[in-house]
Amino acid sequence: MTDVHPIDPRNVQLTEDGKLRHFLSIGGLSKEILEEILDTADSFVNIGEKSVKKVPLLRGKTVVNLFFENSTRTRSTFELAAQRLSADVLNLDISKSATAKGETLMDTLQNLEAMGSDMFVIRHADSGAQHFIASQVTPDVAIINAGDGRHAHPTQAMLDMYTIRKHKGDFSKLKVAIVGDILHSRVARSQVQALNILGAEEVRLIGPKTLLPDNLAELGAKLYTRMEDGLKDVDVVIMLRLQKERMDGALLPSEGEFYRLYGLTSEKLNYARPDAIVMHPGPINRGVEIESVVADGPQSLILNQVSYGIAIRMAVMSMTVSGQMQQKNQQDQNNEEASA
Amino acid sequence: MTDVHPIDPRNVQLTEDGKLRHFLSIGGLSKEILEEILDTADSFVNIGEKSVKKVPLLRGKTVVNLFFENSTRTRSTFELAAQRLSADVLNLDISKSATAKGETLMDTLQNLEAMGSDMFVIRHADSGAQHFIASQVTPDVAIINAGDGRHAHPTQAMLDMYTIRKHKGDFSKLKVAIVGDILHSRVARSQVQALNILGAEEVRLIGPKTLLPDNLAELGAKLYTRMEDGLKDVDVVIMLRLQKERMDGALLPSEGEFYRLYGLTSEKLNYARPDAIVMHPGPINRGVEIESVVADGPQSLILNQVSYGIAIRMAVMSMTVSGQMQQKNQQDQNNEEASA
Amino acid sequence: MTDVHPIDPRNVQLTEDGKLRHFLSIGGLSKEILEEILDTADSFVNIGEKSVKKVPLLRGKTVVNLFFENSTRTRSTFELAAQRLSADVLNLDISKSATAKGETLMDTLQNLEAMGSDMFVIRHADSGAQHFIASQVTPDVAIINAGDGRHAHPTQAMLDMYTIRKHKGDFSKLKVAIVGDILHSRVARSQVQALNILGAEEVRLIGPKTLLPDNLAELGAKLYTRMEDGLKDVDVVIMLRLQKERMDGALLPSEGEFYRLYGLTSEKLNYARPDAIVMHPGPINRGVEIESVVADGPQSLILNQVSYGIAIRMAVMSMTVSGQMQQKNQQDQNNEEASA
Repeated sequence: MTDVHPIDPRNVQLTEDGKLRHFLSIGGLSKEILEEILDTADSFVNIGEKSVKKVPLLRGKTVVNLFFENSTRTRSTFELAAQRLSADVLNLDISKSATAKGETLMDTLQNLEAMGSDMFVIRHADSGAQHFIASQVTPDVAIINAGDGRHAHPTQAMLDMYTIRKHKGDFSKLKVAIVGDILHSRVARSQVQALNILGAEEVRLIGPKTLLPDNLAELGAKLYTRMEDGLKDVDVVIMLRLQKERMDGALLPSEGEFYRLYGLTSEKLNYARPDAIVMHPGPINRGVEIESVVADGPQSLILNQVSYGIAIRMAVMSMTVSGQMQQKNQQDQNNEEASA
Repeated sequence: MTDVHPIDPRNVQLTEDGKLRHFLSIGGLSKEILEEILDTADSFVNIGEKSVKKVPLLRGKTVVNLFFENSTRTRSTFELAAQRLSADVLNLDISKSATAKGETLMDTLQNLEAMGSDMFVIRHADSGAQHFIASQVTPDVAIINAGDGRHAHPTQAMLDMYTIRKHKGDFSKLKVAIVGDILHSRVARSQVQALNILGAEEVRLIGPKTLLPDNLAELGAKLYTRMEDGLKDVDVVIMLRLQKERMDGALLPSEGEFYRLYGLTSEKLNYARPDAIVMHPGPINRGVEIESVVADGPQSLILNQVSYGIAIRMAVMSMTVSGQMQQKNQQDQNNEEASA
Repeated sequence: MTDVHPIDPRNVQLTEDGKLRHFLSIGGLSKEILEEILDTADSFVNIGEKSVKKVPLLRGKTVVNLFFENSTRTRSTFELAAQRLSADVLNLDISKSATAKGETLMDTLQNLEAMGSDMFVIRHADSGAQHFIASQVTPDVAIINAGDGRHAHPTQAMLDMYTIRKHKGDFSKLKVAIVGDILHSRVARSQVQALNILGAEEVRLIGPKTLLPDNLAELGAKLYTRMEDGLKDVDVVIMLRLQKERMDGALLPSEGEFYRLYGLTSEKLNYARPDAIVMHPGPINRGVEIESVVADGPQSLILNQVSYGIAIRMAVMSMTVSGQMQQKNQQDQNNEEASA
């Protein structure tokens, strides 16, 4: 898990007119784009409750799920989102070994492009892999980042923003705490960026000193090592999943010790505001990160997050395809004018 | 393979108005409901022969195949049935280990519910698992039992009933023999229940004494250990599949010995009525349970059963979704009246 | 990998009226049929560039991908082709061991037929397996050969023919060279047949003596062991993939030695005509069969081949279903007349 590719998200993600064209990371996107994503998701949230949960926006489009890292859960949410947009979906299991060399990966992708794919939904263990791919593909394909290394998991961050806006409203009045293994979390990084762009009053990171990276503080977050201090008066508590498989050494005490210090019990939740909401990206480890009575309690929005996640994925899928088509039409027109 | 959950099928399977809402087991269903399933299947049998094998009844619905026990064959029939009803299908491979605790299983299911799933088709090694799940899910999801432990395999039983009714007519005049490893068969249990509810004249179970359970006799079946006696004058012979993987010890002699005593040869078939039909749930073990000349002969309906199986699955899928929507509308209306 | 089934392709592939009914091998097909396939593919090539890449030709049809040999890439092209024809697709992973006996394989297939399948797309390690299956199935199923043993890979050959015709025109004026491991290539065999049927001026096979089979020369091809001689003045260079997994012994020197002698470098490409086109079935081994500068160069049509491959598969799928329906109607009519 290394940062193999230098990342310049600004130019790649947007069309010349500033429309979303790939969705790779929160960094480099404006408040207006993020709010457009949230507004678009709003229109899809209701679809999940209708008897026919389908709109024809991506009819005849081919969405390829390219998961270099296995994640049935995340893949399923993208598959459902694509189906509800009426797209055709191709799930490809790509072992990382088969594409050890960047060149071979590009051959694989160019082949999929040549088959007429319109979108790649990519999860990859290397930070920046999706940016690299996005910088290489033809104008016909949109790239959605479904998680890359420790770098970003932008659709998760946006569904969290959606949850916060829907249940707490105006970001400028909100204190938000993110709790747990910040260091290894691609979600936390994306969340801090999104909260700052959307103008949250205060973003706090809570965890053991060994799992609190400095560079997130630079992005605009306060660091806390004690729940008592960090949760004080917050409006939103976002618990992270313990990424056991991502930990290399002895950065962490035992699970029991972690729970005692950072597990969200109803007792610790009392430090927050009485109307604070509780979120978690799932799947939850009951009794490790969170007490069951909190996970299932009235302040928990954990299952709502799942529902909103489908809507957010439908939003970025439809927006990037629309941006990509607009860009292509623009280029075709430019070519015609140039040759006229 | 233990019976972990107490089962009370009566209330869970039906709406307040007595419509099918989940399809979990034959037990607890009335003759009217079983006949409605058979009649509904009738309307779907013809679809398989049309050039466009599709109806829009489940358009925009999401069907999730949750197979905790692997069975490509059964899963495929449900997948095809769902596709022909125009549903979107999500196949999930769920290793049993990942859901060892009931609580974790419920988290998984609640997540799938939150994604807007309309139906879970579930196969599980634990008897009663589907009943437990059905008692826990929200009003938005219908549960179909695709086989649980030794308990039930109700869609298989109903396709068998469909086959019998289509080819032999009135159940009240029929003697039916079920042959083989009755003890380990979830199909046999469901078949005996269905035949009795539909009013079969006589239900017989034939097998070695070690594989004949007492409790099925209580449900209304005669026990036989010799084919000569059990097959005498029957109208229908249903062979069971030898569930080798389900046998724990030395309940059975050799395969050759089993075939000699209970394999359906053309010679043994002569004990039955000349116009008796031969059925088998498949896949068949030629030369173990059945002689090839019988399996492929004019009395065999083994392949017809497969075709009818798609229609039966379409029937219970469309009926449960319809029942579930009706129940939900009723509840919404009740809520409105309560709050008015 | 043995030739278990004797092959008589002529009768099985065509209806009584000479329409395509299965697509098993190039052998036995007329120039007219091959040209009809190419013309039909022409109408589908443009679909891949439209915003809605879908036609309703196979709506309500069920296509089953039966890959006894794993090939994600080939399966994906058939899956996409089926989706763009609006068919429902069922992917089955069939381990070869589960169907060791031909009889058991036939039971599996008859079950899939009984489920209302309209088409089997089959890849199998045994030469002739698809012919055997096609000779056994009911009139309701069309068989497409997606590669069998060393025998044939006819959709690959046809997409190559499409590429040649689209970029070089009239076959009668073309010299075509096929380079590499001819002996183990099912593609080469199909290509030689197709080129001869379509009237190519000259077909050449280039490779080390140990990898040049005599029987292809009998089909109408000249054998060369030196690139300098074989590539001289050709219009088309088709590189084969090194089938390392197919080689039994020491037929081949090292990879480096192979590349030195038969790898397509820009230097060696100079022997061909200056406007020669370069093709490869993919996936390419850069630096083993072909130099990167050639693979990515202006004469290379490797990615075009992938696009055309979807169109060719859509063509044979729609033509065989149409042929199969016509045959069935004819038979129904004959039966009615016979009984009238």
